Amino acid sequence: IQSKLPKVGTTIFTVMSKMASDFDAINLSQGFPDFPVSEKLIDLVYQNMQIGHNQYAPMPGLPKLREAIAKKVSNTGGVDLNIETEITVTAGATEAIFSSVLATVHSGDEVIVLEPAYDCYIPAIELAGGKPIPVSLNPENFTPDWEKVKNSITDKTRMLIINFPHNPSGAILRDDDIATLKEILEGNPKLIVLSDEVYEHIIFDKETHLSVLKDEFLASRSIAVSSFGKTFHATGWKIGYMVAPEAIMKEIRKVHQYNCFSVHTPSQYAMAEYLQDEKNYLGVSGMYEKKRNFFQQAIKDSKFKVIPSYGTYFQLLDFSEVTDMPDLEFAQYLIKEKGLASIPVSAFYSENQDHHLLRFCFAKGEETLQKAADILCKI
Amino acid sequence: IQSKLPKVGTTIFTVMSKMASDFDAINLSQGFPDFPVSEKLIDLVYQNMQIGHNQYAPMPGLPKLREAIAKKVSNTGGVDLNIETEITVTAGATEAIFSSVLATVHSGDEVIVLEPAYDCYIPAIELAGGKPIPVSLNPENFTPDWEKVKNSITDKTRMLIINFPHNPSGAILRDDDIATLKEILEGNPKLIVLSDEVYEHIIFDKETHLSVLKDEFLASRSIAVSSFGKTFHATGWKIGYMVAPEAIMKEIRKVHQYNCFSVHTPSQYAMAEYLQDEKNYLGVSGMYEKKRNFFQQAIKDSKFKVIPSYGTYFQLLDFSEVTDMPDLEFAQYLIKEKGLASIPVSAFYSENQDHHLLRFCFAKGEETLQKAADILCKI
Ligand SMILES: CSCCC(=O)C(=O)O
Ligand SMILES: CSCCC(=O)C(=O)O
Repeated sequence: IQSKLPKVGTTIFTVMSKMASDFDAINLSQGFPDFPVSEKLIDLVYQNMQIGHNQYAPMPGLPKLREAIAKKVSNTGGVDLNIETEITVTAGATEAIFSSVLATVHSGDEVIVLEPAYDCYIPAIELAGGKPIPVSLNPENFTPDWEKVKNSITDKTRMLIINFPHNPSGAILRDDDIATLKEILEGNPKLIVLSDEVYEHIIFDKETHLSVLKDEFLASRSIAVSSFGKTFHATGWKIGYMVAPEAIMKEIRKVHQYNCFSVHTPSQYAMAEYLQDEKNYLGVSGMYEKKRNFFQQAIKDSKFKVIPSYGTYFQLLDFSEVTDMPDLEFAQYLIKEKGLASIPVSAFYSENQDHHLLRFCFAKGEETLQKAADILCKI
Repeated sequence: IQSKLPKVGTTIFTVMSKMASDFDAINLSQGFPDFPVSEKLIDLVYQNMQIGHNQYAPMPGLPKLREAIAKKVSNTGGVDLNIETEITVTAGATEAIFSSVLATVHSGDEVIVLEPAYDCYIPAIELAGGKPIPVSLNPENFTPDWEKVKNSITDKTRMLIINFPHNPSGAILRDDDIATLKEILEGNPKLIVLSDEVYEHIIFDKETHLSVLKDEFLASRSIAVSSFGKTFHATGWKIGYMVAPEAIMKEIRKVHQYNCFSVHTPSQYAMAEYLQDEKNYLGVSGMYEKKRNFFQQAIKDSKFKVIPSYGTYFQLLDFSEVTDMPDLEFAQYLIKEKGLASIPVSAFYSENQDHHLLRFCFAKGEETLQKAADILCKI
């Protein structure tokens, strides 16, 4: 059988999680929390199953949930959304990204991807018949190198994919990034932005998440993607949403309706209610900021250098002072010999460039983080 | 914005369900049951949420669930499956079909679709870059016209999509169909079968579902798709699975992992346990057979002609004796003027051919079916 994705293997997150479990290592590789989901939220799902909300939800999502999403967006400084035409509930952010790319990228279209990049973007572009154009983020702080982005735009460029707060680095956008992005869009009328904002509610140091939905013009040219799995630390529930202008959303829904049609009904009812209390999403950053601080503090006497993380639940560590091994090799060594799993950042580059960086997920209990830090401090 | 699916509108099931609700009509259009999901199953989902099974499931599905699926397949006369390589849990059968087609159909490949056909096949083929080749089923009984199928095969034919028990007609395959299908595959080494078997556990009159998984050779050339939503009347839970030989599954998983990555974790644990009692799936046919019989009996004095339904929860009615209206127009008339919603079968044909047939979903309580029948008897 001839492959449509000849370069693709099993995703790095599955590979490293499996290796962690094979070697019984502390698993800070694949990004998932190890603490419980809110009992309130679980009970809401249960109640909705019991009262019979178990058949197909409407294809674009439950109206009540789309209303709650619109309220959350406007509550956090975003534009007013039309719930009929501009919001769709998806089987996680991954499905939102996949359906969006398939619906909007035509054969031969170029799509700029800022590297290091989450690993689902490029296969989606390739399946759509598009051409991924990798552009490196600034190597010192992982913010966009806008000159490089501008120089990569051709008359075939259809889409720019951005992801802030940034996985794997935790970098965020600032006002001047937004200004430059708007300028680029103004100069390139064919270009749209796919903004992967799954960590929008995990941001630290009193910084503000600059969503594309906070600016009328940007919102009119963007697809924004978010994830309840990330926000409510229920990554296994596979529920998220996307926002786009009507003309674009119309095309994305054509794909969504034949891709998975609709999303887990009882969870949609539960989320609709749970979102009513804004503390449920506004309180998330504080919880993770404590974990970040704890982890950073616990490794401060190690030879690993901390790269500032302003959001997400990931921490990059530079291991240049520790070893010359390439990152994949060092990550494997850490699992096998030291019992600690992380993600080698080379996996986020299309050419697997090694920058001597490992990514650690700190969405874990303090005891686990302390154990991981103890290992790192002894290396 | 240029469309990738210019001919696609909103799926007929959404359109008719919406119209049913706008006109407060009895909704026998979109296929979904109106009776409760097993309390046992609901409680299992709840328990698994409570004990913390809320993070990403493994990408191919929970091992325990894949084991339970393999046991169900062998229990019902199917081949022995390798759970590591041949089974993947999906976000409903729709995602299984979508990911399968995207992974295996290359640009320019032809895919034979037997019409009337469920509406998700053709858009998936088009997005994959393939060419759908519609071939009509026998108009009198909706079984495959194998001569027509043979005559449609070219050196570009990559896939044949079959769907038995058949939506919308309830037709099923017999031994001679399987024999001919094997012969066709033997003569066309490039051809694979995508077998949409979502109604495998809803089959009547002591007939046997002839799954492609019941024959070693067929299984070696097929992707088989099933749906827990259909089997356990929880269509809103969006959980199903697919089975394919290792080499094919390897390619499909590449798409699945970047399409939705994994499926609702607590439901997977729940299904794994619920499948242990074979009565839970073997008992489904009897429940629906009663409903089919009830509905057929209740309309026997009407002017509508019953087309035999051997499986699924759908009943086709021929309305040639009733009116000359085209089926879409008649379906709209029935909703607006008589308060009863159905699906016009023309929606299942790529050229929207009218055969004076409407599809009614009988997955409803007897009171609802009686009310619908009363309306039909008065026309
Ligand atoms: C879908 S598995 C990957 C989880 C994740 O978001 C990450 O580890 O970056
Ligand atoms: C996904 S909505 C359609 C449900 C269904 O299977 C049908 O009505 O045929």
